Amino acid sequence: MPSGTDTLLLELFVIFVCAKVFGEVFEQLSLPAVIGEILAGVILGPYATGLVAPSETVTSIAEIGAIFLLFTVGLETRPQDLIRVGSTSLRVAVAGVVAPFVLGFGFMRLTHQPLHESIFVAAAMVATSIGITARVLRDLRVLGTRTARIILGAAVFDDILGMVILAVVAGVVTGGGIRWVHLGVVTAEAVAFTGFMLFLGPRLVKRLRPGMERMSSQDAPLILALALCLGLSAAAARIGMAAIIGAFFAGLVFADYAPERKLMPRTHAINEFLAPYFFFTMGARLNVRVFDRSILFAAVMVTLLAILSKMVACGLPMLKEGWRGFLRVGVGMTPRGEVALIVALIGLQMKMISQRAYAIVIFMTAATTLLAPPLLKVLYRDAIAAPEVLEVETETSETATPE
Amino acid sequence: MPSGTDTLLLELFVIFVCAKVFGEVFEQLSLPAVIGEILAGVILGPYATGLVAPSETVTSIAEIGAIFLLFTVGLETRPQDLIRVGSTSLRVAVAGVVAPFVLGFGFMRLTHQPLHESIFVAAAMVATSIGITARVLRDLRVLGTRTARIILGAAVFDDILGMVILAVVAGVVTGGGIRWVHLGVVTAEAVAFTGFMLFLGPRLVKRLRPGMERMSSQDAPLILALALCLGLSAAAARIGMAAIIGAFFAGLVFADYAPERKLMPRTHAINEFLAPYFFFTMGARLNVRVFDRSILFAAVMVTLLAILSKMVACGLPMLKEGWRGFLRVGVGMTPRGEVALIVALIGLQMKMISQRAYAIVIFMTAATTLLAPPLLKVLYRDAIAAPEVLEVETETSETATPE
Repeated sequence: MPSGTDTLLLELFVIFVCAKVFGEVFEQLSLPAVIGEILAGVILGPYATGLVAPSETVTSIAEIGAIFLLFTVGLETRPQDLIRVGSTSLRVAVAGVVAPFVLGFGFMRLTHQPLHESIFVAAAMVATSIGITARVLRDLRVLGTRTARIILGAAVFDDILGMVILAVVAGVVTGGGIRWVHLGVVTAEAVAFTGFMLFLGPRLVKRLRPGMERMSSQDAPLILALALCLGLSAAAARIGMAAIIGAFFAGLVFADYAPERKLMPRTHAINEFLAPYFFFTMGARLNVRVFDRSILFAAVMVTLLAILSKMVACGLPMLKEGWRGFLRVGVGMTPRGEVALIVALIGLQMKMISQRAYAIVIFMTAATTLLAPPLLKVLYRDAIAAPEVLEVETETSETATPE
Repeated sequence: MPSGTDTLLLELFVIFVCAKVFGEVFEQLSLPAVIGEILAGVILGPYATGLVAPSETVTSIAEIGAIFLLFTVGLETRPQDLIRVGSTSLRVAVAGVVAPFVLGFGFMRLTHQPLHESIFVAAAMVATSIGITARVLRDLRVLGTRTARIILGAAVFDDILGMVILAVVAGVVTGGGIRWVHLGVVTAEAVAFTGFMLFLGPRLVKRLRPGMERMSSQDAPLILALALCLGLSAAAARIGMAAIIGAFFAGLVFADYAPERKLMPRTHAINEFLAPYFFFTMGARLNVRVFDRSILFAAVMVTLLAILSKMVACGLPMLKEGWRGFLRVGVGMTPRGEVALIVALIGLQMKMISQRAYAIVIFMTAATTLLAPPLLKVLYRDAIAAPEVLEVETETSETATPE
C-alpha cells in the first residue's frame, strides 16, 4: 500500500473508537452520545492533550459526515407531518425561531461583540435539535401525546427555518459586516429554494418512481438519493450557501419515499461510520483555553437566553391549554444540536466568528442538550405508560424514528 | 464553507454519478456493473479525456472504499459454509489456485517479464470473484444445485487462499526481487493470521455478544464491526501486509453474526457510496495508450491461461460426475473480480508492476467477468426453474446473497 495509507487508517481507527467509546459511556449515563463524541475530540485534540490532530483527509471526511448528517435530518423531515400537526406547531416554531435570534443578537451586541459574530451566534440559537428531542420522547414512550406531536412538528419546521436563516447569514455576512443590498436577494433565493424543495421536489421524485423501478440495481432509490445529496450539496456550496443546506433539502425531497424503500437504516449506516469524524473534529477545534471568566459568563448568559427564549416563545401558544402543556412544549423545544454546531463550524471556517464565539455555541449546545432530557422525564412522568398513549405511539413512532 | 469544499463535493458528485450511470448501462445490457464503473474511470480519467483527475482526498476515499469492499466480501464468507460443502469444494479451490498461479507465472517468465511483475500478475489470476459468480447463479435461480454449492464453496475458500498469497507476495517481494529468506516467515505469519481469524475470531465475537447486547446503541454490532474493520486494516498495513487483508478477515470474523443482526444491508449501503470511487479511480489509473500489439497479445494470452487453468483445474475433480459438472464448475470458477483488481492496484502503488502489467490484469479481469455469465446461462439452461431446485434455492440463497 502507498505510504500514508497506514497512517490514515490508524487515524480513522483511533478517532472512530475514541468517539464511539465516549459516546457509549455517555449513553450508559443516560446522556446524549453526541456530547460524548465531541468531548472525545476536545480531550484528544490539539488544544488539550494533543494526541490526535485530525489530518486534512479526515477533515474532508468529517465534512462529508456533516453532509450525510443533515441529509438524514432531511430524510426524517416529512413535509406531510408539517401539514398534519397544523397551525399550533407552526406558531410554536416561528415564535421559537424569532425569540432566540432577537435575544441572542441583542445580548451579543450589548456586550460589544462584532456584528457578524453576533449574527452567527444568534443564528446558532435558532434550531431545536429534532434528533435529541425525538429520541428522549421515544425513550419515554410518549410520542403519541399531543404535546410530543406539536414538539416534533415544530422542531421539523424549525429546522427548515434554521436552514433558511443559515443560507441568508452565510450568503450575506462578509468579513466587513453585512452586505445589506444582498440581504433581499439572498433571502428570496433561500425562500425560493426552500419552496421549490418542499413543494416541487417530492413531486419530481414521485415522477421518477417508475424509472427507479425499471433500474436494475436493487438499491436504485439509495443511489439516486445519494447522487442528489452530493449534487445539491455541491450546488449549494457553488452558489455560496452552506453545502449542508443542499444535503438537507435533498433529504427532504426523499422523505416521503424513505420509509417505503427503507432508506433510513441504510443512510443511518453511512452516518454511523462518518458522523463520529464530524463530532470529533468539531471537539478538536474547540480551544478549551479560551474559557476565562468573561467567556464563561457570556456562555452561561447565552445558554440561559437560549433556554428562556425557546421556553417562553414556544410555550406561550400552549398556555391556554394549561401550565403542563406550556412546560412540556417549552422544555421540549430547548435542546439545540447538529444545526447549531454546524452553524458555528461554518462561521469558524469562514473566519466570521472567533474561537471565543465558537466555544460559546458549543457550550450552549452541550448545556441545552444535557438539561432537557431529565426535565422532560419529570414533566412527562404522568403520561408515561398510560395504555392509550402506548397504542397511539406505535402508529406514529415510525414517522419520527428512523429505525 | 472553506475553500476547496465545493470543489471536493463537485468531484465526489461527478465521479459518483458517472460511475453509477456507466454501471447502470452495463446492468441494463446484462453485463457486470463493476466493469461499467471501471470504464467510466478509464474514459473520464487523465489518460483518456482527462475530464476528471481524482484528487488526493478522493484517492483516499477510494482506498477506504476498497477496504469496505473486502470487508463485505469477508462478511459474506461464512466459515460454516466451507465446512458444509466439504472436500470437493476444497479440492476444486486448491487446484484452481495452484494452476493459474503456476501457468501465469510461467508465461510471464517465458516472455521475459521481471520476476516481481510475474509474481504479481500470477497472484492476480488466483482468486475467483465470488460476487460475480453468486450473482449470476442467483439470477439464474440455480443456487440450490450441487454444482452451484460447490462453486460458491470453492470461491469462498479461494478468496482466503488469494488473501494468503497476496499477504505473502506483498510482504516478500521488493523492488530487487524476492526476499527468499523472508518467504518462510511471512507465509507462516499469513497462515497463522488466517487460522486465528478463521477459528478463534468467530469464537471471540460469540464471547462479546452479551456485552454487545448490553451496549446502549442499537447499532452496537455495526459499530464493533466497523471498528474491527478499521483496526485490522490499520494493523495489517502497519505490519507490511495489504490493509484490505485485515478488512477481509474482520468481515470473516463477523460473518456468522451478520445475518442475525442484518449487518449486510448496512455495510452494503456504505459500499454503495464508497465502492464507485474505488472502481472509478482504478479505471482512471489505466493508461489505455500502453495497449500496443505486444501487450494486447500478452493480455489475450494471460486471459486464455486464466480461463483454461481455472476450467481444467477446477473441473477435473468433477469429471467423474460427467461433462456437465466439469463444464459448470469449470466455467463458474473463471470470473476474476475485486481481489484481482486490488492485487494489481497494490502492485502498481508499490511500484512492483508496470502500467503494462496493470493493464494486462485489468483486461484479464474484465474479459473473464464478461465471458462467464453468458456461458453459465447456456450450461445451466436445463436446471433453470426445475421445481425441486427452486425449493432448495430459498434455503441456501440467504447464504450467498447479501440481502
